[in-house]
Amino acid sequence: MKIHIVKIGGNLINHTEFLNHSLKSFLKLSGKKILIHGGGSKANIISDKMGITPKFIQGRRITDKETLDIVVMTYAGIINKTIVAKLQSYHCNALGLCGADMNCINSSFRSKTDDIDYGYVGDIQSINTSFIKFILNNNIVPVLCSITHNSKGDLLNTNADTIASYIAISLTKEGDEIELHFCFEKKGVLRDLQDSESYYKKIDFNLFQILKKNHTVKNGMITKLENAFFALKNGVLKVSIGHTDNLNENHKTILCL
Amino acid sequence: MKIHIVKIGGNLINHTEFLNHSLKSFLKLSGKKILIHGGGSKANIISDKMGITPKFIQGRRITDKETLDIVVMTYAGIINKTIVAKLQSYHCNALGLCGADMNCINSSFRSKTDDIDYGYVGDIQSINTSFIKFILNNNIVPVLCSITHNSKGDLLNTNADTIASYIAISLTKEGDEIELHFCFEKKGVLRDLQDSESYYKKIDFNLFQILKKNHTVKNGMITKLENAFFALKNGVLKVSIGHTDNLNENHKTILCL
Repeated sequence: MKIHIVKIGGNLINHTEFLNHSLKSFLKLSGKKILIHGGGSKANIISDKMGITPKFIQGRRITDKETLDIVVMTYAGIINKTIVAKLQSYHCNALGLCGADMNCINSSFRSKTDDIDYGYVGDIQSINTSFIKFILNNNIVPVLCSITHNSKGDLLNTNADTIASYIAISLTKEGDEIELHFCFEKKGVLRDLQDSESYYKKIDFNLFQILKKNHTVKNGMITKLENAFFALKNGVLKVSIGHTDNLNENHKTILCL
Repeated sequence: MKIHIVKIGGNLINHTEFLNHSLKSFLKLSGKKILIHGGGSKANIISDKMGITPKFIQGRRITDKETLDIVVMTYAGIINKTIVAKLQSYHCNALGLCGADMNCINSSFRSKTDDIDYGYVGDIQSINTSFIKFILNNNIVPVLCSITHNSKGDLLNTNADTIASYIAISLTKEGDEIELHFCFEKKGVLRDLQDSESYYKKIDFNLFQILKKNHTVKNGMITKLENAFFALKNGVLKVSIGHTDNLNENHKTILCL
């Protein structure tokens, strides 16, 4: 079956008006759909209030136990349930999930290197596609946050873009036609960060290598593009990066191999 | 069908060792089961860290928007997902839910009185028993936190004991045989708060009126007993108050009309 997988992040989550608008665009997509969200900057605000300074290495949050509690509270708690309550108010039968629920997303602690101990960060081991299809087939809309688990009782922090790609790939392997949309507050991958209209219509893998080398893309955008190409290389039908306003239109960056 | 509904609260939640032990006792119950949890004192700890002082009137938390965010983060976030991850590690197919998920528990803002505006507190309007039975029939164990929603996009704070009673009553009306267990860190309703062995083996409705009058029971225990008798009066088969250690035994307070 055809399934839209939409990942929302950035300022689309933090501002009520943007979030409402994004959810309405999401609901306009026809057919089966899955929503996946991060919430990093909201977690930063809550960390601040609790007097904890977030740590990052190469764009990835270093998650000690205290930080894990904050991201679980933020992603699986306030953001996930706010989205579910809003979707329910729009008559969408949403079900909020983290990776531990129904063993949706199994992960393992990321291996330490000499330089970095990521802490409570999980690398995905498996996706419970049969559960995801079970709920989609029952006309339920899953809303997944970026918390996974290792089946040993640990919750782990996992990049939401990566979760979106893995779910897209797992469902593709089951024979489903997946359109994967990475959405944020920009119209696409920008040539010039100061010019919101300067987005690339199309980026192929070679261009991505050039953009990385000349630093047109950096930090989180590299991770997003890597996840996008990882999905394409594993057979996902369509992958794009853009604003939720243009989910149903072509004003976005289309990725191709 | 026979269904155990177990509500856990108090210190059973806040201490890892007590929580692990409680969950193992819960899993020993035979047949279908539902876990419901509060988490008030954990929310107090997080409020403190964020510099917010919790307010109570007649044992009930006054929930302004800031406090709502904290209880949603705490109940639906860290507590709910910690429990789900632990249950999954014990090979129990748990699914964490708040009342907004699948429209599980619909509520409305509690009416203001001249004296009190409870804020974001929800009085239950309906329970989605068909969804609850759908997941029980698929051998999924629902883990419900005490956050509900009003179908207009608002999340609301609702007493976990009350949720347990309403779910027990709704399933009873569907013809199910419900055993409702209110669990906390004591062996039952105590005659003497200093003596942990002084619990009542049985409390009927008349005795409850006497215990209220002579202040043997007060505050949260009155609410708990009111919820327990409300369930019994609405046909729930068995209702008890006690420790999770004794879920399968008779060392607890049995309620009767």
